[in-house]
Amino acid sequence: MRTIHVIGIGAGDPHYVTSQAIRALGDTDVFFAMNKGEAKSDLVALRREICQRFIVDQRYRFVELPDPQRAADGEYTQAVADWHHARARLWAQAIETELGPDGVGSFLAWGDPSLYDSTLRILNEVADHVEFEFDVIPGITAVQALTARHRIPLNDVGEPVLITTGRQLRSTGLAGSAVVMLDGECSFLRCPPQTRIWWGAYLGTPDELLMSGTVGEIGETLAALRADARARHGWIMDIYLLRA
Amino acid sequence: MRTIHVIGIGAGDPHYVTSQAIRALGDTDVFFAMNKGEAKSDLVALRREICQRFIVDQRYRFVELPDPQRAADGEYTQAVADWHHARARLWAQAIETELGPDGVGSFLAWGDPSLYDSTLRILNEVADHVEFEFDVIPGITAVQALTARHRIPLNDVGEPVLITTGRQLRSTGLAGSAVVMLDGECSFLRCPPQTRIWWGAYLGTPDELLMSGTVGEIGETLAALRADARARHGWIMDIYLLRA
Repeated sequence: MRTIHVIGIGAGDPHYVTSQAIRALGDTDVFFAMNKGEAKSDLVALRREICQRFIVDQRYRFVELPDPQRAADGEYTQAVADWHHARARLWAQAIETELGPDGVGSFLAWGDPSLYDSTLRILNEVADHVEFEFDVIPGITAVQALTARHRIPLNDVGEPVLITTGRQLRSTGLAGSAVVMLDGECSFLRCPPQTRIWWGAYLGTPDELLMSGTVGEIGETLAALRADARARHGWIMDIYLLRA
Repeated sequence: MRTIHVIGIGAGDPHYVTSQAIRALGDTDVFFAMNKGEAKSDLVALRREICQRFIVDQRYRFVELPDPQRAADGEYTQAVADWHHARARLWAQAIETELGPDGVGSFLAWGDPSLYDSTLRILNEVADHVEFEFDVIPGITAVQALTARHRIPLNDVGEPVLITTGRQLRSTGLAGSAVVMLDGECSFLRCPPQTRIWWGAYLGTPDELLMSGTVGEIGETLAALRADARARHGWIMDIYLLRA
């Protein structure tokens, strides 16, 4: 039976890789990777670096999966679902073509495969087309990288924390503590000026940026820093913690 | 200058330890560990197993810190604050006594040091009494262990997730998705019967228990299973994801 590992490789620092992930990497014949185009080539390079650094027997192959375009118009959830269907068909084909009957394939997920990552949802659909076993290897998320680099607790004592998106923050506002991911629009600027923010980008990499203060004090500086970094790198992955 | 590492060792499976954590473990002269009494001796054993397995040069020492009693009566936040003050004084004393001027000490945190863990808060107070540098090494949380073992996404597409406690769930109820930690009272039983639940205990260990379904279908069975496991082991660490 074919085996698929879905491996969380952590959020930036190659040394975020776990011992369990290293075993699964070493076990892999074929790494399936989506081609996200030139813009995120730093991320592709990080994946290859992890494989080169932590795999003893360099007998694996990389297979690039074409990434179907996501419809930019129409309803968001439906557009995402259609995109997953298209991917599932391509992945099933690749698994059948590239893996022998007892082959081991892996998908590497940035951070943790469970958090704002579509691999598991798509794999569940792939299972309609081709037979395989799979397991999931957790990885260090950007949430943990953020708090570790700022050396702060995620939660106030006994209090909850919301993990959310920029889109959600804009529509519902902030109550208590929230970690915001996937925010291309500096949504923190809409929070009251006394809101505290701990921000990080390119966490765990040599390009890491960290900033903290209140939205009133550093909000505009941070937005400018973010725009500049994004222009310089061609992409940005950032995250922040807010406390009301 | 003395250095302190606060190392997240992951939530159960020794192989959740990261490459970064392994380096910090190897760098450590003294591991400071709180004595939490007999009940959680399995957890102490896991820490020692991790040190034995991943540290090449076995030259480290363990120093047990007495754990002051937390007041059971009075206001919760104040009781926790008093307990942190008492700990901070004991830790400062231990760091001064046990570490040479360039010594390296570590505190091992179950899961990740930022999530429902008091080490960072106490260390910030310790800094009032004794000088040291410190860094934080993120670890795999029980949240990630739970979703990995159930092989499910944490969030619905583009939707937020609340990380919360049993106490909070009982007082505010469920909206959307929530991960509940630190719940000794099976608070999921108060959710509507159609609420979906993914539960896990002793995650990543040979004693791991997993269960999923709706609260209506499995709630009572789960509560009984939990009580039984707790009685058998003398302790339990469990966590669950709820979706309304």
